[in-house]
Amino acid sequence: MADNNLYTLSDFQSFIAEDLKNYAQYKNQDPLFQPIHYLLQIGGKRMRPALVLIANQMLEGNLELARPAALAVEVFHNFTLMHDDIMDQAPLRRGNETVHQKWNTNTAILSGDAMMIESYRILSQSPQQHLQSLLQTFNEVALGVCKGQDLDMSFESRNEVHHDEYIEMIRLKTAILLGGALQLGGIIAGANQTTQNHLYKIGEELGLAFQLRDDYLDAFGDPEKFGKVVGGDIISDKKTYLRILLNERMTEEEKILANSKFDSDEKKIQVIKSLMINHGIDMEAIQIAQSYIESALSHLDSIPATQNRKAELQNIILALAKRES
Amino acid sequence: MADNNLYTLSDFQSFIAEDLKNYAQYKNQDPLFQPIHYLLQIGGKRMRPALVLIANQMLEGNLELARPAALAVEVFHNFTLMHDDIMDQAPLRRGNETVHQKWNTNTAILSGDAMMIESYRILSQSPQQHLQSLLQTFNEVALGVCKGQDLDMSFESRNEVHHDEYIEMIRLKTAILLGGALQLGGIIAGANQTTQNHLYKIGEELGLAFQLRDDYLDAFGDPEKFGKVVGGDIISDKKTYLRILLNERMTEEEKILANSKFDSDEKKIQVIKSLMINHGIDMEAIQIAQSYIESALSHLDSIPATQNRKAELQNIILALAKRES
Repeated sequence: MADNNLYTLSDFQSFIAEDLKNYAQYKNQDPLFQPIHYLLQIGGKRMRPALVLIANQMLEGNLELARPAALAVEVFHNFTLMHDDIMDQAPLRRGNETVHQKWNTNTAILSGDAMMIESYRILSQSPQQHLQSLLQTFNEVALGVCKGQDLDMSFESRNEVHHDEYIEMIRLKTAILLGGALQLGGIIAGANQTTQNHLYKIGEELGLAFQLRDDYLDAFGDPEKFGKVVGGDIISDKKTYLRILLNERMTEEEKILANSKFDSDEKKIQVIKSLMINHGIDMEAIQIAQSYIESALSHLDSIPATQNRKAELQNIILALAKRES
Repeated sequence: MADNNLYTLSDFQSFIAEDLKNYAQYKNQDPLFQPIHYLLQIGGKRMRPALVLIANQMLEGNLELARPAALAVEVFHNFTLMHDDIMDQAPLRRGNETVHQKWNTNTAILSGDAMMIESYRILSQSPQQHLQSLLQTFNEVALGVCKGQDLDMSFESRNEVHHDEYIEMIRLKTAILLGGALQLGGIIAGANQTTQNHLYKIGEELGLAFQLRDDYLDAFGDPEKFGKVVGGDIISDKKTYLRILLNERMTEEEKILANSKFDSDEKKIQVIKSLMINHGIDMEAIQIAQSYIESALSHLDSIPATQNRKAELQNIILALAKRES
């Protein structure tokens, strides 16, 4: 495709929607597949598969050859959601009943297992000459995501978590799958190892920035734009990046205040936010997210592609830097 | 290796023990891997990985090239055990605590997931030119095993299960992984599709014969040779092949007798076994197992290899036909 006639993010999302629609017909009478298709159709922005296709286009790859890998990434991501929801005992996912809630835990375990196998089956439809390389990236990322969930669960039962450990956890649980998605798209376009590494880093930094900005917005977002209840993480004492920094910096007196019983959720949110502001944590979180954004842009600079072909990914990175929801 | 200097089953089991020992060092400080290494080291006869190596040798393949696939099959098999034990709420596995019992359910879910990814990672170390073919077999078998577990669980909540459904369940849950193991070994040795199909069928028929003979021995085995408590399945009303046939054939009067309250487990075992004998079910089960054995031997005949190279697999098939434990 000529440089002046490139697909946009929205085009890619349409392709993915089409592939998901076709996939929804696959073994759709099988009880093992009904939870799979249910979870896949309740939505999401499909950013991960879109990143596969975006990287592939940036490096002049053939779209059709990258579509299986994109679908595989989305199926894998939803597998992790199905199992994470069991472990987290979550009743809802994107406003719908979770699989273990709608069916039962055994079904969610087994359909999740089938879903992971499916992600490998679909990935295996990629061009054979890249298969070993694709699998290496996919396996490494997949194992890292499990490790991230393991770390996340371990934090819940610990009193103290260092902010570096938190970054490592979100890197594994969230960021590396974005990195892997871009890398898979690059591999299929024939990218060399150096370019693959830049792609991976872009996704990783993007993921870190995304999660830090998410943590920031939960406390300091504009309620009218954020979409979720502002302060939700504060009310539940969730160990976000901001809260971990606060825990590290509070004086003994402040700790007593922060852990006191509050008259209302509103009061608790107000007190914790004031403490964060006093310690400069709100601005610091934004600055760190910004530094990840800049690092992502710098890796993008190093990729051997025309500015025109880089534009779509650059837009995504820049939009993230400003996102308020 | 010359035809007169072939490895035996016991040699192969030593190679596998060696590979498992090396694998036990892999990420052994990682909390995610500790349950994996725990489960792998509590034993088992390692028949599935041995079948990979046996098929490979039969077709003059290079042993070293087949070792990763053999290990992958063993790791995958143990992944299914880890998750099945959660679903079945089993406290013990080979006389040791199950992973969800020793750690907790979340750990067993997540370490199981990591273990499945590990099986793909290890399989991916196989020769690149066979990777797509290996993955196709592996994915198909892996999904079938999940389907078999799903069927097995669904039987528990059903009053009536037809004996054909039972055969389909054990085919999926147990037999196809043996078929897949032999096929993987053949693929790596460069077997053509026809030979691969024969290998797969040998394993499948072997697995069916094994499970039927297991069902038979539970009721009619020699207590001194069987190793487990004879009659265990009868006491727990487990839907074995023999019990399903009995349920299909009993008169109304016999059903009342079979479902009555017994003074003792011994009495129950005695009554159910008498009913089975009256309906000729004991002999029938043995005959059907024997017909699977014969079919396996006939597929072995069709494989283009010397009698010498076929001997090890033939011995395994013949030993199964006579096994009493």
